[in-house]
Order: sequence, then structure tokens, then C-alpha cells
Amino acid sequence: MGKFLLNRVRVLLWVVRGVRFLNTTGFMAEKDKMMTVQILKGQIVHAPDSNRLDILENGFLVSVDGKIEGVFDILPQQYQSVDVSDYGDCLIMPSFADTHMHAPQYAMLGMGMDLPLLDWLDTYTFKTEAAFKDKDYARCVYRRLAREMIDNGTTRVCAFSSLHRKSTMVLMEEFEKAGMTGYVGKVNMDRNSGDVLTETTQESIRETEQWLEESSGRFKHIKPILTPRFTPTCSNELMAFLGRLAQERHLPVQSHLSENIAEIAWVKELHPDCSQYWESYKKYGLFNDRTVMAHCVHCDERERNAIKENGVWVAHCPDSNINLVSGTAPVRKMMKEGLRVTLGSDIAGGALLAMNQVVTAAIRASKAKCIETNRSDDFLTVTEAFYLGTTAGAKFFGGGDGFAKGNELHAIVVDDASFPPSAKKLSVKERFERALYLMHKDDIVAVFSNGRQVKSLKKPF
Amino acid sequence: MGKFLLNRVRVLLWVVRGVRFLNTTGFMAEKDKMMTVQILKGQIVHAPDSNRLDILENGFLVSVDGKIEGVFDILPQQYQSVDVSDYGDCLIMPSFADTHMHAPQYAMLGMGMDLPLLDWLDTYTFKTEAAFKDKDYARCVYRRLAREMIDNGTTRVCAFSSLHRKSTMVLMEEFEKAGMTGYVGKVNMDRNSGDVLTETTQESIRETEQWLEESSGRFKHIKPILTPRFTPTCSNELMAFLGRLAQERHLPVQSHLSENIAEIAWVKELHPDCSQYWESYKKYGLFNDRTVMAHCVHCDERERNAIKENGVWVAHCPDSNINLVSGTAPVRKMMKEGLRVTLGSDIAGGALLAMNQVVTAAIRASKAKCIETNRSDDFLTVTEAFYLGTTAGAKFFGGGDGFAKGNELHAIVVDDASFPPSAKKLSVKERFERALYLMHKDDIVAVFSNGRQVKSLKKPF
Repeated sequence: MGKFLLNRVRVLLWVVRGVRFLNTTGFMAEKDKMMTVQILKGQIVHAPDSNRLDILENGFLVSVDGKIEGVFDILPQQYQSVDVSDYGDCLIMPSFADTHMHAPQYAMLGMGMDLPLLDWLDTYTFKTEAAFKDKDYARCVYRRLAREMIDNGTTRVCAFSSLHRKSTMVLMEEFEKAGMTGYVGKVNMDRNSGDVLTETTQESIRETEQWLEESSGRFKHIKPILTPRFTPTCSNELMAFLGRLAQERHLPVQSHLSENIAEIAWVKELHPDCSQYWESYKKYGLFNDRTVMAHCVHCDERERNAIKENGVWVAHCPDSNINLVSGTAPVRKMMKEGLRVTLGSDIAGGALLAMNQVVTAAIRASKAKCIETNRSDDFLTVTEAFYLGTTAGAKFFGGGDGFAKGNELHAIVVDDASFPPSAKKLSVKERFERALYLMHKDDIVAVFSNGRQVKSLKKPF
Repeated sequence: MGKFLLNRVRVLLWVVRGVRFLNTTGFMAEKDKMMTVQILKGQIVHAPDSNRLDILENGFLVSVDGKIEGVFDILPQQYQSVDVSDYGDCLIMPSFADTHMHAPQYAMLGMGMDLPLLDWLDTYTFKTEAAFKDKDYARCVYRRLAREMIDNGTTRVCAFSSLHRKSTMVLMEEFEKAGMTGYVGKVNMDRNSGDVLTETTQESIRETEQWLEESSGRFKHIKPILTPRFTPTCSNELMAFLGRLAQERHLPVQSHLSENIAEIAWVKELHPDCSQYWESYKKYGLFNDRTVMAHCVHCDERERNAIKENGVWVAHCPDSNINLVSGTAPVRKMMKEGLRVTLGSDIAGGALLAMNQVVTAAIRASKAKCIETNRSDDFLTVTEAFYLGTTAGAKFFGGGDGFAKGNELHAIVVDDASFPPSAKKLSVKERFERALYLMHKDDIVAVFSNGRQVKSLKKPF
């Protein structure tokens, strides 16, 4: 490749689809093809597997056309004329993937925390979401949300919108503009949703079809995901429609499963033919390897086995489960059994949008579980929880193991210079662990999403 | 009082003992006595009792010579010529009291989280504290710590230093300079402390006496507190010495109680004459109404009763208890039984220095307890947890109920303008709850400690 190197240009502004992404890039040409090469240098930390933390001090993370070529301790010869974005002693790690969150609930973050799930839905959530009928208001909230997520180092997301088609389009637009990648779903809910936030079955079907049509091919990085809110709010007819749609168009699906004891009993009443909650999705074709199910707090062995057998993804939402007193999910057990567990902020049941805080919340929740089970369930190590919030989540979006070759470049650069002074020189592993616990968005000085630089607080050397 | 009003002056810098406190104050004179009057205007929120949240919209918080005169909806006539510090729509609430923390462990905040208590002490903590032999390093860490605490709205503290006398003096100096109030203790530990951090019994006694002499009368706002680290690290002779000292000089005491199952078993071995852990303090006169005991996670009914009967204060440290997998303290039960429960960050077992985060950690830990006990222990409401972090803690330092008349002025001003946009106008109560969950130090725009303004990010109108 090196011998075809023709030119290198330092560009500061790279204009893509009307959005300016700050960038420091070199161009290379191989035969007739121009390539964009990015080289980040720093203290590289990633978790290719749940119990493996790979650290390369003063390493080079090389990507070509947004795809990772590799992590190198010495820069390969063919890249030696390309400008290096040298972040010095900063930590470079994969950005976070948030696999479950309710975008409109950003407006009520940190409120209603004295209420359990079903009361909280009636008192706060449905009213908050109803306001998203107004798409100008939606734009105001979603623009802030998208910026806040990028600033906090989340570049992959699987988000619930509200039931409103137009505001769902606004959410997709704002995520795309900010540089996010992932899925957004117009919520379907045609029963048991209170007066302020419901649609008829026919409206739900019609609006879903129109939304899919409008969003088709419109966004490069944000795609639609079918989103039956949860079994109690979707009639059988609606579920059947969504199942057909998922199959016909090969669409992914997101919903909730076994979050709360009262909810599970309710599903049982609504679907007496189903012996377990998951079957109410399965029977409509909504429970497969393109499905991500949030929570799974109270899944017993049989339900966990069904999740595994069907290749369903679990979005563990530790802060939400504690805040709403839903329970403590058996995360360690699910991982051990081979389920594909990922992490969700679940705002606003969760009050933490920043995924590094969700990672530490997962550790804390697993420690609560460890205490609760008299230590029969072991707690998550720092590496395991970090893996869940990065690599494990990225895989739902088609990503690979950490910074493995072929992965799209999703990364953050963390400057920990403002953290408390230590008497001895800390190892990169210690600094990494501390960063997960302490970092604030201001410490995340650069963010890369699918190869594009979408945040820049600090220029590299 | 009004008729004696002679003069009013707006001062921006008020120089006290070499430290500049930003201030906006009026001076009034009554007969021959000059008084300093401060009036803060805003959305006033405080919790005089554990189940009572008092809110006064657009209220006036008036203090004279640093002591609160009252909270008024209309400014009393005698103050009408005094300049008002109008914080507009900002929230004004009591500042936080942190009743248990290890100042030197600030240097290891957020590290070592995969280890349980006793291993964590050996691997991280003792080594970290050993570095405080160097008082220049201590100054560097303690200056940052003090600033960070004030910036996060903590104005009252009960802190463990290390065993080093000189660095303990440095901590007292830095707390005093930053505008903190409260207690600092030179740690006593003459056994079971590893090679790097131990003192002989005679050294411990001599250094403690010298420290008390050196600090006597030297600080206005920071006072000494006797600090046997915990029973396993203090010989009987040392405990007996500290008990005598506490009695002779009427000194307060801080230590640890029933944090961890292994620790409790160890105390039982070391003191076979004591049927319970607390008795190992009681027999030396270290368990009375000037004692604050951290954790109390595993206290059964008899031990809780002893705490109550002896008037001992409990410093509940929710984040530490989870991080070190110590257990979930029965906080709600202790409060119901009439124990005097307060909140501690317990850095660096706790990874959260900001006390608003410790308040929400207490809610979360109580919810984990609620789950663990199959809902027989109810969780803490937002008001209850806020009370623990403000009024309940303040009482250990001689404070009263919230912003009650006669209390020293300890307050923070929170600007929540950068929080997510809501569709409807939020009530002050909702904003208060959200602030507890979301606020970052940058949102705390002013801090008052014992009447002095010690932080100012925003000028009042």
C-alpha cells in the first residue's frame, strides 16, 4: 500500500451531508482509489473479550476509510508519512454503545424517583412523552440529547422515540446530524397507555408504515427498529402486524421483558396461552437474533434459555432497575450461560445518561446482587462491565471485538490530567479504571463515530 | 433594628485570616454593635425534618453575622435597605455535611474496585496513605481536595487524615483556608497495619498529644477529633489512652463499626470479652454522644440499640458499602428506631466525593436493600435522603433543622438552567429532585459556609 502513497493533506473541516465533522486525516491513494487514513496515538485500552483487557502504551490506532486496520506498537512502514493525531498520555478507548433508552424521557431525567414502574409510567412518563406531539419541542429536546450523548462518548444507540411519527423523524435527523449511529424506533402502543398517549390499532399500523417509507434511505447512520412498547400496551393485532413487518423487511426489534413482578403477572393475564412473558413476543415473530430485550430482571432458567436459543440480545439497565425497584438482574449468570448481554442507560428510568456511569452502575448493581444472593452470584469486574458497555453492545450493531481489524472506528480520547494527584506513577490499567469511575464529559476530549471525529475539545500534538 | 440602620456597603472581597472570601453583604449597626447582614433570594428548599421538605418560592434567606434569622416570603421591614443577593430562579438549599471520609484516599479515588475490604486495605489503601509522610505531597492533594469539596457544595466534614501528624496539620490548614468547617483526625494505628503504615504505641500517643497541642486554638473552623482507625489496628493500650483523652478533653471520636463480616469476626477474636463489636469501643470510653461510627452495615437489633442508648452517630456510607461488597445497611430501620443517621462519602471506598451523588447513592442502596429484603425494608424517599445529607449531618456539628433560625448559614445556590428542557413548567420540588440526581459542580454557582461565601461562579442580580 505504501508504495502507492501519493499525497497527504491535513484537513480540519470535513463536510459530510451538511454536517461539519472536525477531523485530522491523511489521504492516501491505492491504484485509482483514494483512501482516508486516520492514526490516533496514545494509551490504548480495549476489551476484545469479557475477561480480557488489552493495553498498548504509546500505541497507534490506525483506521482506513473509517475501518480499523489495527493497533500497533510501532507504526507500520506504509503509514509513516501520514500525520499522526498524537494524544500524548491520554487514554484511547472504544466509545460506548447504549442499547436501550427512551429519547423523549430525557426531558424528565432525574425525576419521579419515589415511584415504582407502573405508577411512574402513569404519573410521569406517558405525560412527558405526550408532549412530543409537538415536533418543534421534539427538535429542541433531541438536539440537546444527541449532543449530550456524543459529548459523553456514546456513539451507538438503540433508542425508543415516542409514538409520534414526525418527532421520530426529528430524532433520527438529530442523531444523524450529531454523528450518532444506530437505531431509532417509533413506539407502538394501542392499549393500556392512558388517555394522553395512545393510538388506535389502525393509526399505529398506518403511521408505522409511513414512518418506514419516509425514513427509507434517508439516513446513512440511523436506521429504523420496530418498537412494540411492551406486551401490555400492544394488542394482538398490532403485535401480529409488527411480527409480519419484521420478517418481510428483515427489521430489528426492541422491547421490554420481565422487568417487574407486577408487569409479568399482567402479561400472564393478557396472554393466558403463554406460560412465560417471552412467548408473547415469540408467537408473533418478535423474538429472534435481531431482537434486543431490555431488562430481563426476573428471567428464570427457562426464560434465559429461550433468550439464548433464539439469539435474542439482552439490554441490561442497572440504574433503571434499582431506581424503579424492579430488582437486580442476574447479569453474571446470564453472561456465564452465554447470553448476549449489553448495557442500556434506560433514561429516564435510569438517571444516568453517561455510559461510563452506566458501566459503573452495572458493577454496583452486580455487587448488590452478590450481597442479595449471599455471594452465590459473583459481581462484575471492571473489565467485564467495560466490555458490556463497549464491545458487547457494539456487536448488536455489527461491530467486532474491541479495536479489532475491520471494525468501524468508534473511539473516545480521555484526558485524566485533572484527576486527583497520585504519589506513584499509575499504570494505564489503574488510570483506565479510575476514568470509568470519575470521568465527566469535559474529560472526554475527542470522540470518533464510524470514522468521523464528532467531538474535539483538545487538539492532538 | 431598622431604626439603627446607619450604613450599607457593598463589598466584594472580605479578607478573613489571609483568605479571600467573595461576598455580597450589607453592614447594619444596632446601638454600638456592627452587624453583617446577608440576604439571599431564590427558590428556597430545605428539609427541617426527615419527612418534611419546606419550599418557599422567591423567598428571602436572611442571616445576621453568619447566623440565620429566618426564611421569609416578604422581606421584613428592618432589612429593606440591605442589598439583596438575588439569585433569580436558582435553587437555594442547605450545603452538604460529609460525616465520614478518608482525606488521603482522595489520591486513589475510583481505583481498586475489584477487591473486598481487607484486601483492598492491604493492596491500595495503606500504600496510598503511606505517601502522606511527605507533607508537600499532602499539601498538593489536600489543597485540591478542599477546593473540590467546596466546589461540590460540601461545607461540613468529619475527616480521617493519615497517621502523620504534620500532614494532618496540613489537612486542617487547607480545609480552613478553603472555607470548610468541621473535624479532622490524625489516625491512630499501632498494629495490623502492614509494614508501610504503622506506628508504635508510644509514637501514636506522643504524636497525638503533640498534634492536639499544635492544633489547639490555631483554627477557627476546623477542630481535632480522636480517630482510632478501627479496633483491629489499635492495641488495648492505645484505645485506653484515647478513651482517657476523649474524656479529659471532651473530644469527639470517629471510627468504624460493623462494616464487613470478616472484620466483625476479627474483632471478636481480638476481644473475646466483647460479645459485640461496639463493646470494644465502649469499654474504653469511645462510644458516646460525641462519637460518629461509620457504616453499621451488620448491626443487629442489640447493637443498634446500643448505638441509640449511647447517643452515638451513624455515618451511613452507601457507595462504599456497595463498592466493597460490605453489605446494604438497614438505614430505614435505623432511622425508624430513632438512631441518629448521617451520610458519609467514605472516599475512597466510596468513589463519589460530591455529596449530592452520595444522597442519590443512599436512595439507590436503600432500594437494593428493599429488593434484598423482599420489600420488608422500605426505601428512602428523596426528601429523607436529602435530610440525611444536610440537616441530619449538620446536627453532628451543632447545626439545627434546615434553615431554622439560629443556624449558621451553610447553603448552596444551584443553577439548573442547563438541565434538559421540559415541556411543562416544573415545580420547585421537581427541580430540586432533579438537581440532586443531575447536578455537577459547575451547576453549583455559589456556596456559603458558616456565613462566608466560599464559592462564586455567578453574580446575583
